[in-house]
Amino acid sequence: MSASPELSESAGAPGRGPDPRAERSRAAALAAARDLLVEQGWSAVTHVAVAARSGVGRSTLYRHWPDASGMVRDVIAQRISTAHAPPTGVLRDDLVRELDGLRRLLHDPVSDRGLRAVIERAGVDPVFARLKEDLYRHGSQVFRTVLEAAKERGELPAGLDTDLAVDQLAGPLMYRRLLAGRTVTEEYVQRVVHDFLAAHAPAAGSPPLVP
Amino acid sequence: MSASPELSESAGAPGRGPDPRAERSRAAALAAARDLLVEQGWSAVTHVAVAARSGVGRSTLYRHWPDASGMVRDVIAQRISTAHAPPTGVLRDDLVRELDGLRRLLHDPVSDRGLRAVIERAGVDPVFARLKEDLYRHGSQVFRTVLEAAKERGELPAGLDTDLAVDQLAGPLMYRRLLAGRTVTEEYVQRVVHDFLAAHAPAAGSPPLVP
Repeated sequence: MSASPELSESAGAPGRGPDPRAERSRAAALAAARDLLVEQGWSAVTHVAVAARSGVGRSTLYRHWPDASGMVRDVIAQRISTAHAPPTGVLRDDLVRELDGLRRLLHDPVSDRGLRAVIERAGVDPVFARLKEDLYRHGSQVFRTVLEAAKERGELPAGLDTDLAVDQLAGPLMYRRLLAGRTVTEEYVQRVVHDFLAAHAPAAGSPPLVP
Repeated sequence: MSASPELSESAGAPGRGPDPRAERSRAAALAAARDLLVEQGWSAVTHVAVAARSGVGRSTLYRHWPDASGMVRDVIAQRISTAHAPPTGVLRDDLVRELDGLRRLLHDPVSDRGLRAVIERAGVDPVFARLKEDLYRHGSQVFRTVLEAAKERGELPAGLDTDLAVDQLAGPLMYRRLLAGRTVTEEYVQRVVHDFLAAHAPAAGSPPLVP
């Protein structure tokens, strides 16, 4: 996830660093786009609505974001950080920590709404299709690293299907939030990891769920 | 899921049964709405677009569906049937069969797109919020019945959290289709059920995955 090309190109005159006024306009526009996204969904994020709400001129908006979907993309990319802590090498802890990141993301109004927009638009809008690919790839990367390392250490079966494993870890949280509309607690995350390990690494002997 | 009230009220004059012409118009309108939904998502399903595509007059459309979201709702409700086969009492078979229904639903273009629309709109449009509730409740009901019966027979732990169990069964498929965009095979469904039982009913002894 990186800043949009539009920004990098328009944020300042060449050789003079970013223009603070342009930066402020961009921040104001994205704040307005973010609020519209949370309150009414992606379809409310239009140049007209963002201009009215932010006070940024419509022509400036069109220059930065020729398509309204670019504004939604930048709101989501800005919010859904892909910074992950490096794995510690303790399988259960690493899975819980990573899954807890997803839990927090699903409970953040902006990233929750952004994720729903991405899921809905990916099939019909290439901007969202690319964003979905990025989110999925970055979002599952640490899981993959952790799972592969555990396979190498013999803590998970060598034949374990990593894609399936990611689905089994992330899927329950997604289903619970996006469809059932229920809260995901830290304890829930512990349970999902516990059951995942019970299914795939029973020989390792699962410690009791509640410490 | 039932026919919309608009339809029942407007399909025929009182006491004379449904009006075949009104039925044809409604079917043509819903077919156009369905195609627009699949091709461009819910936001393309407008009175203007459906009228142009179906040949049904715009005033007729407004009479049947005062809001465009009502057309999307009826397309989805019509497609996502809630007919489920009655459980057989064999836990693994019942879970596989029910989950295979979800698999097929996720691979049907109309219900796939409808589900994405529901997930995106539920937070901002009451029509979709109700639809999501219906889909979730009906969609998880057979799972609940099967799981509760297995608990009573002692095939699953009495303390098993049924909500979590539904998440663990349906979640991986949803994540895989909606976010990863991958195919869900019948074998995948078998694996999810296998791993679910390995986590929760290890004492029962899982038969080998491939018969």
